[in-house]
Amino acid sequence: MHPYQHVVKYYECDKMNITHHSNYIRFMEEARVDWMDQIGYGFERMEQEGVVSPVTEVQCTYKYPTTFKDLIEISLRVEHLSMLKVRFAYTMTVRGKVVCTAMSTHCFLENGRPVALQTRFPELYAAIMKTMDN
Amino acid sequence: MHPYQHVVKYYECDKMNITHHSNYIRFMEEARVDWMDQIGYGFERMEQEGVVSPVTEVQCTYKYPTTFKDLIEISLRVEHLSMLKVRFAYTMTVRGKVVCTAMSTHCFLENGRPVALQTRFPELYAAIMKTMDN
Amino acid sequence: MHPYQHVVKYYECDKMNITHHSNYIRFMEEARVDWMDQIGYGFERMEQEGVVSPVTEVQCTYKYPTTFKDLIEISLRVEHLSMLKVRFAYTMTVRGKVVCTAMSTHCFLENGRPVALQTRFPELYAAIMKTMDN
Amino acid sequence: MHPYQHVVKYYECDKMNITHHSNYIRFMEEARVDWMDQIGYGFERMEQEGVVSPVTEVQCTYKYPTTFKDLIEISLRVEHLSMLKVRFAYTMTVRGKVVCTAMSTHCFLENGRPVALQTRFPELYAAIMKTMDN
Repeated sequence: MHPYQHVVKYYECDKMNITHHSNYIRFMEEARVDWMDQIGYGFERMEQEGVVSPVTEVQCTYKYPTTFKDLIEISLRVEHLSMLKVRFAYTMTVRGKVVCTAMSTHCFLENGRPVALQTRFPELYAAIMKTMDN
Repeated sequence: MHPYQHVVKYYECDKMNITHHSNYIRFMEEARVDWMDQIGYGFERMEQEGVVSPVTEVQCTYKYPTTFKDLIEISLRVEHLSMLKVRFAYTMTVRGKVVCTAMSTHCFLENGRPVALQTRFPELYAAIMKTMDN
Repeated sequence: MHPYQHVVKYYECDKMNITHHSNYIRFMEEARVDWMDQIGYGFERMEQEGVVSPVTEVQCTYKYPTTFKDLIEISLRVEHLSMLKVRFAYTMTVRGKVVCTAMSTHCFLENGRPVALQTRFPELYAAIMKTMDN
Repeated sequence: MHPYQHVVKYYECDKMNITHHSNYIRFMEEARVDWMDQIGYGFERMEQEGVVSPVTEVQCTYKYPTTFKDLIEISLRVEHLSMLKVRFAYTMTVRGKVVCTAMSTHCFLENGRPVALQTRFPELYAAIMKTMDN
């Protein structure tokens, strides 16, 4: 598994000349999408089968500001996996320095009701479990 | 003090037909700006004096999805105020139902170095303290 | 018909300390949504009936920059209405000064195919025609 | 010169499940930044010297919708260069099909006043002229 890379865009910087803090929440989503591609189970596959995976919580600690053209490397690991929820932990670095650590929690819904990942997508569940062994 | 109101825009909704979770972080900023106007000390005044107030942490718990045209009411209160940091707690409701609770922490920087709010902006410090009495 | 009002948000401003130019395209959408509410035919009604109205063209001329907290007033009128397309013209002002003029064109699609507005939504077509008389 | 590549993000898609039209204006900016890097004169160099280059006009024609994970290739060329303005033309393709054509015009400002590119940044002016020969 390799970290996801995001180069900060001009329009992502604010008046203070730093990456607006709300954008990190989007970078986290980009990293998740990439991570699911890496474990061989694209984000869109779940949606095509009628299951959506809304975010139930996010948390972000900003340690150093980043700015235009910075290359942010985002490492992601599953911190917790239960029947109904998955929690990711993120570490974002620029030139090796940690600029942000973050966390997000997600559930799985089908027709508006909670779905057990292990039952509904056993293949995905197993693939996630496997990443946690390392 | 009255809650801040945000009507969800079409472009703030995602494929799942709900407000994209990253946007709540922006609504929190809108609510802070409005709150500072209400306590009589506009956000831009600090910046004009050369002090910026970056976000050091955000946390957001999503309880119910919102969507296009929903009127989100955001109540905000200072949960903690120290020399160097301020922490806000947010409650967001739609038609009286809590859809999201959140928190953000901010520091104050002048020329890149931490500034004690009480010393640098005693008037603002006092105004914030006053909101905490209630 | 009254103009739509948008107050520029902190996160809408860029490094140059002005409203990022891409956001005006979003303000135009906000103004259209409001305009349809004013003519009594909400944007979401069409979508609920399975018709979407994608943008086929936008054009924006930026005359003066705007910034954080500016109140932009957006007037909108239908410049052209045909069976398959509608074209809006926008004038955006801040304190009476024109800061931006713009244009957008839209078609109507049902199940991916063009729909004649006059046939599919005669009530909406008539309401739009009526605004053009003035 | 190679085209700029943008992969459509989940958060860039709207309720209609297509890339929100406002985002193309941002992709154009990304392509310009990349183009200036390719001609050897980074976007940030101008800003470091106190010259900003605001957008004075954009125009976008949407031919086909794009969606999540689409790889958009953006080719860019200078259509017109004068003392005070530069105009870019863009062609965006997905798997070889043109999805969007666009145009943007920019001026150059120093301390709020127009600057002649040829005089102020002769090296950049020459580099741009050179791209027009081909």
